[in-house]
Amino acid sequence: MTSSVEVTFVGPNAQTRGRTARAALSETVLQAAQAAGVDIAATCGGRGRCRSCRVKVLKGDVPPPTVQDTIQLGHEEVHEQFRLSCQTRIVSDCTVLVAPPKTEVGHQILASGRALDSAGVALDSGVEKRVIVAKAPADEHHQTSDVEEMLTALAVDVSREIPLEIMRKLPAVLRAQKGLLTVTTFNQNVIDVEAGDTSAHKYGMAFDIGTTSIVGTLLDLVTGEELASVGNVNPQATYGGDLMSRIAYAQFDEKKLTTLRVRALNAINDFIKEACEQAKVAPEHIYKIVVVGNTCMHHIFLGIDVSYVGLAPYAPVVRDPLVLAAKELPLKAAPNARVCLLPIVAGFVGADTMGAVLATRIYDSDKIRVMVDIGTNGEVVMGSKDKLMACSAPAGPALEGAQIRHGMRGAVGAIEKVQIDTDVHCQVIGNAPAIGICGSGLIDAVAKMLDAEVVNSSGLLRRRDREALPPAIRERLIDNPHGCEFMLVKATDAGKDEAVTLTQTDIRQLQLAKGAIYSGIMMLQKVMGVTDQQIEEIMLCGGFGNYINIESAVRIRLLPPLPLHKITYFGNAAHLGAQLALLSETERARTYTIAQRIEHVALATRPEFQDVFVDAITFSSPATAQASAAAGAQ
Amino acid sequence: MTSSVEVTFVGPNAQTRGRTARAALSETVLQAAQAAGVDIAATCGGRGRCRSCRVKVLKGDVPPPTVQDTIQLGHEEVHEQFRLSCQTRIVSDCTVLVAPPKTEVGHQILASGRALDSAGVALDSGVEKRVIVAKAPADEHHQTSDVEEMLTALAVDVSREIPLEIMRKLPAVLRAQKGLLTVTTFNQNVIDVEAGDTSAHKYGMAFDIGTTSIVGTLLDLVTGEELASVGNVNPQATYGGDLMSRIAYAQFDEKKLTTLRVRALNAINDFIKEACEQAKVAPEHIYKIVVVGNTCMHHIFLGIDVSYVGLAPYAPVVRDPLVLAAKELPLKAAPNARVCLLPIVAGFVGADTMGAVLATRIYDSDKIRVMVDIGTNGEVVMGSKDKLMACSAPAGPALEGAQIRHGMRGAVGAIEKVQIDTDVHCQVIGNAPAIGICGSGLIDAVAKMLDAEVVNSSGLLRRRDREALPPAIRERLIDNPHGCEFMLVKATDAGKDEAVTLTQTDIRQLQLAKGAIYSGIMMLQKVMGVTDQQIEEIMLCGGFGNYINIESAVRIRLLPPLPLHKITYFGNAAHLGAQLALLSETERARTYTIAQRIEHVALATRPEFQDVFVDAITFSSPATAQASAAAGAQ
Repeated sequence: MTSSVEVTFVGPNAQTRGRTARAALSETVLQAAQAAGVDIAATCGGRGRCRSCRVKVLKGDVPPPTVQDTIQLGHEEVHEQFRLSCQTRIVSDCTVLVAPPKTEVGHQILASGRALDSAGVALDSGVEKRVIVAKAPADEHHQTSDVEEMLTALAVDVSREIPLEIMRKLPAVLRAQKGLLTVTTFNQNVIDVEAGDTSAHKYGMAFDIGTTSIVGTLLDLVTGEELASVGNVNPQATYGGDLMSRIAYAQFDEKKLTTLRVRALNAINDFIKEACEQAKVAPEHIYKIVVVGNTCMHHIFLGIDVSYVGLAPYAPVVRDPLVLAAKELPLKAAPNARVCLLPIVAGFVGADTMGAVLATRIYDSDKIRVMVDIGTNGEVVMGSKDKLMACSAPAGPALEGAQIRHGMRGAVGAIEKVQIDTDVHCQVIGNAPAIGICGSGLIDAVAKMLDAEVVNSSGLLRRRDREALPPAIRERLIDNPHGCEFMLVKATDAGKDEAVTLTQTDIRQLQLAKGAIYSGIMMLQKVMGVTDQQIEEIMLCGGFGNYINIESAVRIRLLPPLPLHKITYFGNAAHLGAQLALLSETERARTYTIAQRIEHVALATRPEFQDVFVDAITFSSPATAQASAAAGAQ
Repeated sequence: MTSSVEVTFVGPNAQTRGRTARAALSETVLQAAQAAGVDIAATCGGRGRCRSCRVKVLKGDVPPPTVQDTIQLGHEEVHEQFRLSCQTRIVSDCTVLVAPPKTEVGHQILASGRALDSAGVALDSGVEKRVIVAKAPADEHHQTSDVEEMLTALAVDVSREIPLEIMRKLPAVLRAQKGLLTVTTFNQNVIDVEAGDTSAHKYGMAFDIGTTSIVGTLLDLVTGEELASVGNVNPQATYGGDLMSRIAYAQFDEKKLTTLRVRALNAINDFIKEACEQAKVAPEHIYKIVVVGNTCMHHIFLGIDVSYVGLAPYAPVVRDPLVLAAKELPLKAAPNARVCLLPIVAGFVGADTMGAVLATRIYDSDKIRVMVDIGTNGEVVMGSKDKLMACSAPAGPALEGAQIRHGMRGAVGAIEKVQIDTDVHCQVIGNAPAIGICGSGLIDAVAKMLDAEVVNSSGLLRRRDREALPPAIRERLIDNPHGCEFMLVKATDAGKDEAVTLTQTDIRQLQLAKGAIYSGIMMLQKVMGVTDQQIEEIMLCGGFGNYINIESAVRIRLLPPLPLHKITYFGNAAHLGAQLALLSETERARTYTIAQRIEHVALATRPEFQDVFVDAITFSSPATAQASAAAGAQ
């Protein structure tokens, strides 16, 4: 792994024209510029609060946008490769255009003719803090009450239904600082009152509850700034690694469902605490929490019976977007903080997919785009502003390294890249001796083995004509009684005195997994009548998508044969969508109308699916595969 | 006490013309009729569900109406002395008119020209149970959810916001009986779902949380029938017998407030359980609970800080009518049952007064009426449909027997009536030997002592000219070092070998108490410009009001000098109002508009109050009192 890359800065500013600097990987572009003496304005001090430090990535990999990028620059600019240099971590050699001084004209040019207003995301979290001076009732004749005095001083139209907790604390709050108090509202509802002026403290959190891991971010709802980021494995994993085993555990057993719910709840409450400690923020100042997750995680988090989510037709109990009070769950934020769950499309197209749809803006695209979230269940959404279809492909856990002899998660010691020439060269995470292979390594390994003809297009490890292979490669093909395998790392070079190999079964598992996802894409293409050529872009979403080698993914037919520049990484789009819905009620409201537009395609019930799947599990398109089979590769 | 009375039945029906029967006290009129062979139709079986058994009380005391009387007969008929004979317990010798066979014409005549529609109370509790057949999602292509299937089958306009508990149980409910299920709504909100048809089970409770006692009734919301009645002392009493000491206990101390709240809450939950056991009803089938109580009880029940309710200007924290979910408190009914609290007018004119205003219909009166609730705080409401004013008179606990040397509650052994001729004759509750005197006995004793000139109009026990008194009376006047006292029951006749006496201080306490209430009435008369002659009726409300001898109350100037027929007992009007609001959302909604109409008069802050109070504490009107003082009664 290289730890240092070259960044070239160009721009209308003579000073920065073509200056090149070396920078460390994962430094921000702004840090690299500052170290190199390139002058980029950072009015807000590099906290993602303004647009002054924006750059356009002209060459090199563009990291997925953060919510700050989207808020400050708008979806259009983000799509045009603009980023805030303070938020953008360097991932490869690149050339960036430094934005001209901020003027409306300059902006108009950069934003390719569209004004920010139409494309941007306004900060409208729905949470308002209003500082008022309310007088305590003082006249025995004039009939009034603390609540009425507060509402009168508030002088805006809010619901008169005040939560019990607030009535309980209002008398003291009203009299603590001579009536100076802060009323917090969410939309038209009073959700908190505090003595004094606390208007600067208005926070929210966005959570993505995944089957494998839970991640969250703490955002400042006044500025949109990210204050902390937290995450870890989903502690429900003890009760089953994948969705179906988690459902099986809780099926028809309320107590076990509660066990799972409490695990997630405790984890999230710990994350809230952790994030608040990191950012030195009081949890009581968190007023809005947006949660996304697949249908199963969503239901379990709410304690909703998932028994039937696991049985055909896999229908959710509820699909509507929900807004609950934190105290109902309970989440340890302000008791009346609003916990907002994005809507669900279908049993296996959940609120996480809705978050991703929101973040990628696939719903607003002129041309056909495809969003693929690669995981145990691969969700695929295809379409444009005219029509959107979604399906879920049961890929199984092979791509996460499970059910693979030497499979492991993407941690230190995992093979993540493979190169084959006259011998095999493996890149291992952490540059440590190899102890196993992760999903992205598996894809890369098989792609390179196909090129090296170690495996054929139908997925068989080479048995005949091995003499044609370079000797070092040939040696790595081992036949033993239970089948053939290919040694990637020899025992002598490995971290655990055991060779890291790929077995024939491993390759079959990969075929089933990638075949499931690719057949999902192909089925949507069939149903919508979309050719490969008509696809403008494939966006890889989800944590796993960011690590795979796109070229290899196309080589093994995990993805359709598109020009590589049409396939992009989008990062954790579900989480980004949750953050957008956190910062903007307009965005959150949008998810409901979008969810109603998305048509669900139930793969397994389609008569044509079987044929598509049989095609999709091979490593070559049918014509090639048949030719190759006829040639008798075995 | 007589235990048997005479009931005379008259009516257009020849069979019943003038038949007289003996009946036991507290038997219902219907039971007496049946025992005497008088034919009264009781179509519903005597459960208050129809109007067939109605009678008009022509002579004798009319017990206060029950909520069934009001529901079935309407306010107008009830006011015209009509009652359901199945609901009416006999309280004295009486003559009742048996209603003619039920026909619209007959009804029109009896109802004095007003149709039921305009005067009656419709059963519209707001709780609806709808039996539907909803199908579980069955098609993988058609995107839907359990909630949507239920809402579709429901086919009425309800809020899509389904409480969490209901989403949690819906999957099982939807599939238990092939989709046959009952959806319970309160107004436009789904509050429960159950498998099968449970539409016959729809119950509600009405509670009056008094400082001294808590009473409740369980009503069938399908029929309006009363199923159980429960009540006992308020267990908060350990922390102070009256309001102010209860406030002082909890003031600025959240933990102590919680102690009081939990006491009331547990008591009410026990009452719910008890009532449900009596009626063989599941608590989960209670969907609406209406609660009334004074401001302090109301706030404590909700856990709202009462610190400032006890300090001038005694403002409530909230006056609006509240609707909360049972689970929020928590009350052990259906988790989403609605707990409705009637509105509050002012710190000392609470939701109980609103209940009484609703039940007495004083807000709809053409002429001036006065509603008096005699208690530690006496609430007075005066007015008509044009204007309503209210005040609270701090009477203190003397009328409840406290701070009186031999004072006690109205229990066995308490003197409740006194007669004085040549000697003193006391009627004791339970016909037991006397051990003390209760509030109504106190009023009666002092009234008779005034007539016998044992006490004078300024409240002094007679010291001079005792020779004019009959010897047996004279002997009862005892002088001792700490003052003079009057022996009602001698030690030899008493239950505890101790004479029951009234001391000079006892009489002073009574004067302060009755003076407070009468000055409240007088102040409202002054402010509204109402003469005694203009008062059409005084309605005595509250448990205590039912026991006092009206003649004696007028004699001691607890009440203004009105013809006795203008002063009536209304029973526990607050509780009756709660029941009306339970059975009718129209009635409940009415309390809000009425509450806004009521003007609060803060007695103590009025400059003229001091003079009015000094007048009110005497036993004669000022002119008489002065003359009597001049005559030197001492």
